[in-house]
Amino acid sequence: MTSLAPDRYFDPDPTVRKLARTLYDSIADLPIISPHGHVDPALLADENATLGSPADLFIIPDHYVFRMLYSQGIALEAVGVKPNDDGWVETDQRKIWQIFADHFYLFRGTPTGAWINEELVTLFDIQQPLNGENAQAIYDQLEEKLAQPAFRPRALFERFNVEVLCTTDAATDTLPHHRKLQASDWQGNIRPTFRPDSVVNLEFDNWHENIDLLSEASGITVHSYTTLIDALQERRSYFKEMGATATDHAALTPFTVSLSPLEAEAIFQRALKGEATPHDTERFTGHMLLQMARMSIEDGLVMQLHPGSFRNHNDALYRRFGRDKGADIPIAVDYTHKLRPLLDLYGNDDRLTLILFTLDETAYGREMAPLAGHYPSLLLGPPWWFYDSLNGMNRYFDLVMETAGIYNTAGFNDDTRAFASIPVRHDLWRRASANWLAGLVARHIVGEEEAHEMARAMAYELPKRAYRLE
Amino acid sequence: MTSLAPDRYFDPDPTVRKLARTLYDSIADLPIISPHGHVDPALLADENATLGSPADLFIIPDHYVFRMLYSQGIALEAVGVKPNDDGWVETDQRKIWQIFADHFYLFRGTPTGAWINEELVTLFDIQQPLNGENAQAIYDQLEEKLAQPAFRPRALFERFNVEVLCTTDAATDTLPHHRKLQASDWQGNIRPTFRPDSVVNLEFDNWHENIDLLSEASGITVHSYTTLIDALQERRSYFKEMGATATDHAALTPFTVSLSPLEAEAIFQRALKGEATPHDTERFTGHMLLQMARMSIEDGLVMQLHPGSFRNHNDALYRRFGRDKGADIPIAVDYTHKLRPLLDLYGNDDRLTLILFTLDETAYGREMAPLAGHYPSLLLGPPWWFYDSLNGMNRYFDLVMETAGIYNTAGFNDDTRAFASIPVRHDLWRRASANWLAGLVARHIVGEEEAHEMARAMAYELPKRAYRLE
Amino acid sequence: MTSLAPDRYFDPDPTVRKLARTLYDSIADLPIISPHGHVDPALLADENATLGSPADLFIIPDHYVFRMLYSQGIALEAVGVKPNDDGWVETDQRKIWQIFADHFYLFRGTPTGAWINEELVTLFDIQQPLNGENAQAIYDQLEEKLAQPAFRPRALFERFNVEVLCTTDAATDTLPHHRKLQASDWQGNIRPTFRPDSVVNLEFDNWHENIDLLSEASGITVHSYTTLIDALQERRSYFKEMGATATDHAALTPFTVSLSPLEAEAIFQRALKGEATPHDTERFTGHMLLQMARMSIEDGLVMQLHPGSFRNHNDALYRRFGRDKGADIPIAVDYTHKLRPLLDLYGNDDRLTLILFTLDETAYGREMAPLAGHYPSLLLGPPWWFYDSLNGMNRYFDLVMETAGIYNTAGFNDDTRAFASIPVRHDLWRRASANWLAGLVARHIVGEEEAHEMARAMAYELPKRAYRLE
Repeated sequence: MTSLAPDRYFDPDPTVRKLARTLYDSIADLPIISPHGHVDPALLADENATLGSPADLFIIPDHYVFRMLYSQGIALEAVGVKPNDDGWVETDQRKIWQIFADHFYLFRGTPTGAWINEELVTLFDIQQPLNGENAQAIYDQLEEKLAQPAFRPRALFERFNVEVLCTTDAATDTLPHHRKLQASDWQGNIRPTFRPDSVVNLEFDNWHENIDLLSEASGITVHSYTTLIDALQERRSYFKEMGATATDHAALTPFTVSLSPLEAEAIFQRALKGEATPHDTERFTGHMLLQMARMSIEDGLVMQLHPGSFRNHNDALYRRFGRDKGADIPIAVDYTHKLRPLLDLYGNDDRLTLILFTLDETAYGREMAPLAGHYPSLLLGPPWWFYDSLNGMNRYFDLVMETAGIYNTAGFNDDTRAFASIPVRHDLWRRASANWLAGLVARHIVGEEEAHEMARAMAYELPKRAYRLE
Repeated sequence: MTSLAPDRYFDPDPTVRKLARTLYDSIADLPIISPHGHVDPALLADENATLGSPADLFIIPDHYVFRMLYSQGIALEAVGVKPNDDGWVETDQRKIWQIFADHFYLFRGTPTGAWINEELVTLFDIQQPLNGENAQAIYDQLEEKLAQPAFRPRALFERFNVEVLCTTDAATDTLPHHRKLQASDWQGNIRPTFRPDSVVNLEFDNWHENIDLLSEASGITVHSYTTLIDALQERRSYFKEMGATATDHAALTPFTVSLSPLEAEAIFQRALKGEATPHDTERFTGHMLLQMARMSIEDGLVMQLHPGSFRNHNDALYRRFGRDKGADIPIAVDYTHKLRPLLDLYGNDDRLTLILFTLDETAYGREMAPLAGHYPSLLLGPPWWFYDSLNGMNRYFDLVMETAGIYNTAGFNDDTRAFASIPVRHDLWRRASANWLAGLVARHIVGEEEAHEMARAMAYELPKRAYRLE
Repeated sequence: MTSLAPDRYFDPDPTVRKLARTLYDSIADLPIISPHGHVDPALLADENATLGSPADLFIIPDHYVFRMLYSQGIALEAVGVKPNDDGWVETDQRKIWQIFADHFYLFRGTPTGAWINEELVTLFDIQQPLNGENAQAIYDQLEEKLAQPAFRPRALFERFNVEVLCTTDAATDTLPHHRKLQASDWQGNIRPTFRPDSVVNLEFDNWHENIDLLSEASGITVHSYTTLIDALQERRSYFKEMGATATDHAALTPFTVSLSPLEAEAIFQRALKGEATPHDTERFTGHMLLQMARMSIEDGLVMQLHPGSFRNHNDALYRRFGRDKGADIPIAVDYTHKLRPLLDLYGNDDRLTLILFTLDETAYGREMAPLAGHYPSLLLGPPWWFYDSLNGMNRYFDLVMETAGIYNTAGFNDDTRAFASIPVRHDLWRRASANWLAGLVARHIVGEEEAHEMARAMAYELPKRAYRLE
């Protein structure tokens, strides 16, 4: 048994809470559809893989966690994050864990704190809240559990009742882990997702090397815009063969533009010579989004767009520690103007499914719900990143659903690299949506039977349909 | 009797709900003031006019409805929306109704769904929720009712207890229906509203033809900026004679600017030759808003400004089906800078009433409430378009009222072309405001007696005062 | 006894209300930390100072109050606000009070209305709600109280249980009142705050005169950028000596930029000649913010940044009545890009504490919480100005805390010039935060013990720590 309240996250009002509980109970045990995330496929490809130490599991790779510690003056090195120079880094896992436990109070009221707490209880049966004093005792318990076969990723995958898990993989990736998974007799449904940012964004780290990797992976020497298109097409087709049903695209903004082949080629040649300007980069990225939409219409891969993150905002940290160190900061985003060239060309084509995300919640009601409530090709993805939280979900429901309806959304995805956190994240979504629907029933806006159908759709059917996983 | 819950839309908390019910009961039967909307005056000018078929009433003219169907892959032609070429369009009203009923679940949790449902119950006494199976049976019931004299628009107008209804009419309109209404002995109070977009916005569809129509209607040949001003002045005076108390203006942004007569004339001449640039258009529209404010001070017509909609976002659809096809998408709007030239000239003049609307809710608390809470000329209109909903109203109350107070707002207007939906829309506002006030009482922020006065003001007195309908 | 409801502002839900009450009771009597505000130090420096007439206390100096009256057509002169020409101004305090009372209903549901009401009850024991009829009787009661020694500012300071109060003082201020306070044997802890806007913002009213005042105050003749820096450094050190622990900076935007000394000097010389362009002004202000951050690292003064107010939006009013007349209107603000040059240089330095404020709530979740949840130097200030209200606080909690956690915030500050309103403002924050925490407990997001620690931190410990007042 656990110390978690069975009614957690539900509205305190007894009428709403009771309805929420009933709705939640009907969907709590549905299989997990995880159509977008960043779990390392190696974890599942190797049947003997483990989750590592408690610090490996909860702290070192999780930029949600160490950004908060860093914001309060704790050096990244002190919690095991390696600098790219020869500088010191803490390697004593117990010391890292102790620092984390000493500062776990910083996460009060945050989703990160709630998830970690729930994982400790539901997965590891830890009954006391973590703090500096019980840190080492809890470390012992965790270590003991993590060494058991039942805590290997494949065992957990089954215990979690994951029906399908999609990873995110560079366009240059040869997908060795996915090949291994396909070759094995393990039944887990793991699929890659095609992410070409590192070759279509001319400013990406090591772009030239990535182009070389793309040539290698595709067997097509990429020396021109035309060969780039060919190579991407080839790689998409390989990903599709390997089970992919979707692509994923990050971009600073959702700017799209249709370049003439001549202009696209000229920019690409400048990029090869290292002479691309920021203006070139913006236009080329915007043009490649169009190309990706076109290819999606042809090959049926669902397209995801994640704009609006100013990556690596902290330059000194980026130079010393690299990407994904908790310093990606959102910006305001204009979807109405910037996405229009793409929608002009492909928005009315229902062979295209384009799933839109945002880090600018002001766009939910103002732009995204009206767009998704009109264009046949558009669906809205769930609250993303900083908004993957109880309040984030509540705002999403209130701002999106009245205009777009739930059937223009893509249900939930966990978007996580923390494999062990997948169930608690889906559980939060299921609770939040049950609670939202309970509020609609209590206000007589939908009937109870309808609410049950909507709850099931939001938990299970919508993501399956949106990502063509049926 | 109906199957609608008497406490619909109220907070589930028993204390709030009880207070909300009491407040609502005291205003539920007040006459309806409808100072801004898009009802066709012909419906009321002709005593024998009818609401048409069930599909005419609920589907074919309502872009809220067919945009949602379109977003899920249903062709506009299939629900009776005519393309402007010779293409096929469904004309079988029962088939259109069936498609709608089959997909009515898409509207779950949306205000459109709620309004239609309430109309079916309260107006037509339909007791089962509409779905694909009962579609034809319900069609029969509706058809039978719609053929009765009690369902003619004038009869409904009286049944709805509408004290005054203002239509929206192009500046070039000769108001034949309003003339006919004035000449008749029917007592309904129907007034026109002066809307000059089609002649002051140089980019409007058929601008040249509209200028010709303006010349004709005003008896002043519009061949220059000066004659344009004269013609508009003449038309305003005619509208006022015909009962208008207000003007209405759409604009992409609230940009205002004061041009010299020379520059205004130069732009107008370029426009006549078809040589106006987008920059010209923006400046001319911004300048004409100033002129309209000046004329309002002179003739006392209340000025309404509805900025922030990117009209006809879907170009292919626009070319084939024309305006108002569910593809108008909001944009972010800056009121603080853009409205300043107008406010500099006229903002301190309390002869001017300028009612501001927005599709960018971020402006409510940041810009609009502070502006309306300072300038004597400004009032805030109610939540508009996508925000004319329970959540939209709740956000409006929370974001506007603490800074502007309710007395710098203009109460509610339904802004609808769907005549039969007027009562349910006002009912939602009355319920939402009663519920909001109940929350203030329950939190001891206002007293119960004050709340009753505020409820009455929001439902009835504020719009009457704001639109000078007293 | 008073007629105020003991549970005011709490959620109506009985579970939440009971928890909120318990949490509130545990912090209600904590001393007040007021680390940022605009109280005139003369009020406390002179032991015989009084709060003046009821109109002086509640109306004439309070632009929150008279902006609302003005928005409804009441001339500023009529409520005692002096124009800077020889024009008439009402001087009869009772007439001013009567106008205010006649229109007090305008403040229904506003924080200004609630504060005034609470002050009347808690401070002056007025038992009836103010209105036009009882206006003069209440004036009598107030006048009688205000004449008593117990209503002198120093007596109230003690009655209010203020542990420390920081004023805001121009960089050119010689701090005579603070000197007098230090020399006196009164124990009240009053500290100045260094605000250099009037000399670093080249567009500030009377900038040249301010530079002269700076020369005088610092003993350093400011004839160049270098001497400006020297003079500011000298003045900071004097403020610090006089007890200051912080600086404060207003700016239209949070734009920062690092200029070469050469460019900074060139701009400064142009400014001295009255030839600075708006572009110069923007760059110089942005550069001076960097310099202030640098000096903060050196001298340890906490830096506050209040951007996003378009000051003196109503030009005619500004010319006739001057600054701070209720016509400052917020604008949208981009922190992510604009603050980056400062953060690049100093954001990782934990000797710096930079407390950020906003009038654009869209930045809370999108930019400010992610920034504060990463950079060691950043903390977030409480809801400011129009958002210093129940709804403003609720939105702040919901939008900021999940990402930044409470420990990256600076607790509350009242930011008021209305000395007598300090306790009711802090009381609102304490009630709002208790209520928010009660909601977290009721939803099982934090435990009750944790909530008590968080409540105490938010009411007392966080501002003390943030402003280095420990």
